[in-house]
Amino acid sequence: MRIDNLQYANWSEKVFRQMREGGLDAVQVTIAYHENFRETVQNFEKWNRWFEKFPNLIMKGKCARDVDRAKETGRTAIFFGFQNPSPIEDDIGLVEIVHTLGARFMQLSYNNQSLLATGCYEAEDSGITRMGKQVIREMNRVGLVIDMSHSADRSTIEAAEISERPIAITHANPHEWSPALRNKKDDVIRAVTERGGMIGFSLYPHHLKNKSDCTLESFCVMIARTADKYGVEHLGIGSDLCQDQPDSVVEWMRVGRWSKEIDYGEGSATDAGFPTMPGWFRDNRDFGNIEKGLVSVGMSTKEVAGVMGGNWHRFYAENFTPRG
Amino acid sequence: MRIDNLQYANWSEKVFRQMREGGLDAVQVTIAYHENFRETVQNFEKWNRWFEKFPNLIMKGKCARDVDRAKETGRTAIFFGFQNPSPIEDDIGLVEIVHTLGARFMQLSYNNQSLLATGCYEAEDSGITRMGKQVIREMNRVGLVIDMSHSADRSTIEAAEISERPIAITHANPHEWSPALRNKKDDVIRAVTERGGMIGFSLYPHHLKNKSDCTLESFCVMIARTADKYGVEHLGIGSDLCQDQPDSVVEWMRVGRWSKEIDYGEGSATDAGFPTMPGWFRDNRDFGNIEKGLVSVGMSTKEVAGVMGGNWHRFYAENFTPRG
Repeated sequence: MRIDNLQYANWSEKVFRQMREGGLDAVQVTIAYHENFRETVQNFEKWNRWFEKFPNLIMKGKCARDVDRAKETGRTAIFFGFQNPSPIEDDIGLVEIVHTLGARFMQLSYNNQSLLATGCYEAEDSGITRMGKQVIREMNRVGLVIDMSHSADRSTIEAAEISERPIAITHANPHEWSPALRNKKDDVIRAVTERGGMIGFSLYPHHLKNKSDCTLESFCVMIARTADKYGVEHLGIGSDLCQDQPDSVVEWMRVGRWSKEIDYGEGSATDAGFPTMPGWFRDNRDFGNIEKGLVSVGMSTKEVAGVMGGNWHRFYAENFTPRG
Repeated sequence: MRIDNLQYANWSEKVFRQMREGGLDAVQVTIAYHENFRETVQNFEKWNRWFEKFPNLIMKGKCARDVDRAKETGRTAIFFGFQNPSPIEDDIGLVEIVHTLGARFMQLSYNNQSLLATGCYEAEDSGITRMGKQVIREMNRVGLVIDMSHSADRSTIEAAEISERPIAITHANPHEWSPALRNKKDDVIRAVTERGGMIGFSLYPHHLKNKSDCTLESFCVMIARTADKYGVEHLGIGSDLCQDQPDSVVEWMRVGRWSKEIDYGEGSATDAGFPTMPGWFRDNRDFGNIEKGLVSVGMSTKEVAGVMGGNWHRFYAENFTPRG
């Protein structure tokens, strides 16, 4: 079983066919960076059209069983997530609405301060806000998973503590391996994994050691060490693959509508666009390379199966439905 | 000249006639608590209908000269303000749009954390956010005044420091006179007034010493002492008059859409609605009582004229237009 718990490609038949070539049974796709509720609904609509048009390649994923169903029918189950709470605007009632529409992950902040939590690029991190505490409780109730990938450290630790269900960092790597601002420090990973949460390893070059020149071996050794440290059952993949996206999209991701100036995020003025992917992970077709790489560094078949998809499958089964 | 720089009444011909009885040449009215952009536009529309229906009582105010024009023609100029940045959503381009539509004051936060700044009811105050810094610059550019009445202390002081134009606390009183959470401490008032900013005294009973039982003398002595301490030219009235509003409106002000639970704000479960106004300030007809009260406590005619409207008039003249 293979699950990639974070992608934001320029979706097309080509990409869906590559998901099949790569053996992906499920992919969590981002459908909102800065979109408000109405704009997010339009993105659900777009996916409805793709499900209608490519029923032999993809299907809508709502629960863990849909991953099995996709696998059995040779398709990829698509799960929806938001990288920002902008789709719920200032309205707690929208938490249940977006879950009903199919959302399964929502970041509490994206780089900047949100109404709920602080983002990783703010100078100060005040933790979870008053509304944030209410929204976490409501997300717990309906089965919408808290994702803190782009949140600041204190906010992430508080979210893990306040949430009564496990939370996720869907796409990031350990800071001690590659000290990018977006990568996660020990206490943050510990707060999430100790409470049953997951971390998805990112293949986005700005999160990799030596960026685009990162070796498969270095990546896989990092995963093995993270497994030793925090427990392999908390680990999965969240590739952050942004395939075929024009550079205008990375600008939207970074700047949204909040600034009149360009913000380069993890890039820079001279390196503003999407970075080049490492040769061993061009796109969805290369998940087999990671699987082989993990075996090469000495992980067991069972451990590798967990990282490649089994752990996310278990997490989906436990966290996508209202609490019984 | 009389200006009240904050009201949120249940608007009607009766209230507009009382403004005339009270000699109000201008009133700043709140047209957004939690409204998003589209909802705020509907509130501009409502006011357009009132201007059309009551042209002999009220007129739209855009600049300080409109206050003079209103006075000359026996009308009240209505200026628009937001108590929350919700009308600009996450879109910096909306700052200029709302100014063009007529907005002249915008609070950077309302009790809770916003995308721009922290509200006074949050446990932690992280100051002005990344987006907040951008928005302050844009507000300075177009002539939309920063109001920090419901913001937390650090955020207010930072806003005063970051803003290149004076800012306002449109409706609050000194904390040392009445230690309500919403009233302002010395360092906050100082940061605002030292940079040319204004504070408007509130008549909302939760902001008054002894609440509904506050005496006119106590209120006026407080104003005289504040004048001695910070300079009379920085003082005006921002009554926070919420006349004829049903209690459902105070619930909307406090809870908006952000919580499924009731939040009582400055009230309590047993005192949840609008508090009773003091006898000497029932509504717009009683501004004369305040004027007399200020004279009684020994303020000069010139000082009283400044507090009753002259100071806001000067502030309007300097801060409602793009910088030359």
